[in-house]
Amino acid sequence: SIDAARFLGRLAALAEIGRDGQGRRTRLAASDADRAGRDLVTGWMREAGLDVRVDRIGNLIGLWDPSGTGSGPVMMGSHIDTVIDAGAYDGCTGVLAGLAVIEALRAAGDVPTRPLALAAFTNEEGVRYAPDMLGSLVYAGGLSVEAALATVGTDGTVLGEELARIGYAGSEAPGTLRPHAYLELHVEQGPVLEREGVAIGAVEDLQGISWQEVTIEGAANHAGTTPMDLRRDAGVAAALLVAWLRERAGAGNGRSVATVGRLRLEPDAINVIPARAVLTIDLRDPDAGRLAAFEADLRQRLDGLARRENVTVTVRRLARFDPVTFDSGIVRRIEAAARARGLSVRRMTSGAGHDAQMMARLCPAAMIFVPSIGGISHSPAERTADADLVAGAAVMLDVVRDLCGT
Amino acid sequence: SIDAARFLGRLAALAEIGRDGQGRRTRLAASDADRAGRDLVTGWMREAGLDVRVDRIGNLIGLWDPSGTGSGPVMMGSHIDTVIDAGAYDGCTGVLAGLAVIEALRAAGDVPTRPLALAAFTNEEGVRYAPDMLGSLVYAGGLSVEAALATVGTDGTVLGEELARIGYAGSEAPGTLRPHAYLELHVEQGPVLEREGVAIGAVEDLQGISWQEVTIEGAANHAGTTPMDLRRDAGVAAALLVAWLRERAGAGNGRSVATVGRLRLEPDAINVIPARAVLTIDLRDPDAGRLAAFEADLRQRLDGLARRENVTVTVRRLARFDPVTFDSGIVRRIEAAARARGLSVRRMTSGAGHDAQMMARLCPAAMIFVPSIGGISHSPAERTADADLVAGAAVMLDVVRDLCGT
Ligand SMILES: NC(=O)NCCC(=O)O
Ligand SMILES: NC(=O)NCCC(=O)O
Repeated sequence: SIDAARFLGRLAALAEIGRDGQGRRTRLAASDADRAGRDLVTGWMREAGLDVRVDRIGNLIGLWDPSGTGSGPVMMGSHIDTVIDAGAYDGCTGVLAGLAVIEALRAAGDVPTRPLALAAFTNEEGVRYAPDMLGSLVYAGGLSVEAALATVGTDGTVLGEELARIGYAGSEAPGTLRPHAYLELHVEQGPVLEREGVAIGAVEDLQGISWQEVTIEGAANHAGTTPMDLRRDAGVAAALLVAWLRERAGAGNGRSVATVGRLRLEPDAINVIPARAVLTIDLRDPDAGRLAAFEADLRQRLDGLARRENVTVTVRRLARFDPVTFDSGIVRRIEAAARARGLSVRRMTSGAGHDAQMMARLCPAAMIFVPSIGGISHSPAERTADADLVAGAAVMLDVVRDLCGT
Repeated sequence: SIDAARFLGRLAALAEIGRDGQGRRTRLAASDADRAGRDLVTGWMREAGLDVRVDRIGNLIGLWDPSGTGSGPVMMGSHIDTVIDAGAYDGCTGVLAGLAVIEALRAAGDVPTRPLALAAFTNEEGVRYAPDMLGSLVYAGGLSVEAALATVGTDGTVLGEELARIGYAGSEAPGTLRPHAYLELHVEQGPVLEREGVAIGAVEDLQGISWQEVTIEGAANHAGTTPMDLRRDAGVAAALLVAWLRERAGAGNGRSVATVGRLRLEPDAINVIPARAVLTIDLRDPDAGRLAAFEADLRQRLDGLARRENVTVTVRRLARFDPVTFDSGIVRRIEAAARARGLSVRRMTSGAGHDAQMMARLCPAAMIFVPSIGGISHSPAERTADADLVAGAAVMLDVVRDLCGT
């Protein structure tokens, strides 16, 4: 069974890696902090007897093949990069639970027929480099290694150069190891499980994601002398857009969400009308048609805004993923494993993006969720109870045992 | 008469000082660029035979006292600091026209009864350190030198330390030289003179200015998993505020203006609901009562916003100046001087803040405006025709001659 103390101790140790200048936990992909996290996790993987490889996009893959079959492994995984001012659980839970599962099988003397693999994928969060889930997307063949390595970050860095700099630009072609199945344990990051008092989420699908960057160009002018009706204020246009997005998301059937997480004004001076605004838009919906309709409305809105506010608007696509349906067989196995352990379980939709959604292109895949206290994530206030973390890892252990045929 | 070639040549030379990393003209107060500008202007003042002093807040004061009376000088002045990505005329026009006026009097062999003084005041723009017109405010006794030197800038620097660093922290107490009268030539920075085809503005008053910094605290959470109705989105609250300010300013009788020039989100990540927004609000109105009413409405609005959006709002006052009425006698002299030169002239209100509004606390003061092409200022597109600049300087020469009794 899962060594809870070791699993939770490692989670706590990894959580200490990567405080930024303001004391916030910020382990952006391919940063120095990410390197420190990777070094720690690689060490643990080796201690657990895994053969660790790094592929060209920096994905860490640990392999345990006790039967020497070399055939398609059962893969577990997630990521260890974080957002800015992040919590301790997002991503790390899945990687370290996967490690705990392999260690539990070894400790029990199990000799699985199929190999087991553990992945820590590069740049899942998408905060430094877009799109999110970049490492697993490349692994699954959805983006070329070359294009991915050339990605320019929010700080102007190039992903390939940063991976080389931190010593995690491997030589192996991503996706060489083709899994038999993929499983990912993750904190829910939303309010559903806690609100319903359910211990385990069997994730059967994952909503669509649309990321765009909008640049609005108006004209700088003097804040005191320029009449309101003669202004071409890029900041006002951006504000009207943010307000509309909130209305539009709230107006539907309550499933669409819209977020403007970044917004920058130029020249950014108190008495200068903003000449330019650059903002990001994150739209999501579990239904592909509804997501596309929201995007179409947004395009129309931007046209109208440009006309009415006398500004120009340009849009850059940062990420676009349709909703994903997970493998129903694995979802049923998760439900069965939870029930067999006396844990309450429900099927659910993932609101967040996950590496599992990319791996689902390659092999049967599904996810196990555990409750997030207060539904909080992407925040230092992110929490999951120890017992829930260990229960989730135990369910994953049972499903893996089931899938790899010991 | 005014040496147009020298005046315009210096304006062009000063305009080249202070390109920032992006090639923009950015000569923020007490920066390295400001030092270079000050060095240039100080050299020109000395060439013109002025006795140049620097006071404790860094104001440059050049004195010409040919009769050796030592009594209250007629002072001209303005500033040479700029906003970010600025034009070439704002402030520099007044300083260099003042220099040209003194040189014209010397060249003509005039020996004025009263001394003449020329000031280049510190930090008029208020972009790096608030409030704006800081140097002339201190000069006029409206703010203590100690408080002013302790001002923390938008970049975290302390004004006193920066003045010392660039070698412009003088030893003289500001305001020692008490002027008999103060005159400032400035580009209008707005559309009125050009629209009406008028050459000279005799500025009879200047609108009130209210600057506030608003901090909105919500809660970070995940952009994909957090339902719209459970969010505490500081960015949405900021956007609703910006939209309201525009409505409120436009709704009045068309005289109030409101600008949000700065807006910063934290943590500033694409898939994180903003936990915090910090923005500046610049409100202006020529009428004291209307400005106060706008401020009162804003306070109410912020309270409502905090309640409805479940955020906390704190406000920091950055600047507050009531409308100023200039000296009617000097205004009449400006009108008369313009007419005597065959120039069209109108009385007008200044939409921008100016050092003259602070000097009006000390002595009779007024301003001369010349047209801004397209009404543009606080922008690299700021322009005034050469002929208009020279006409404005000539009118100032006549009024100064009148005031200083040659
Ligand atoms: N799980 C998670 O937070 N992934 C980051 C990508 C996204 O959903 O925004
Ligand atoms: N004249 C001028 O642009 N002054 C700066 C202060 C302000 O009015 O915003």
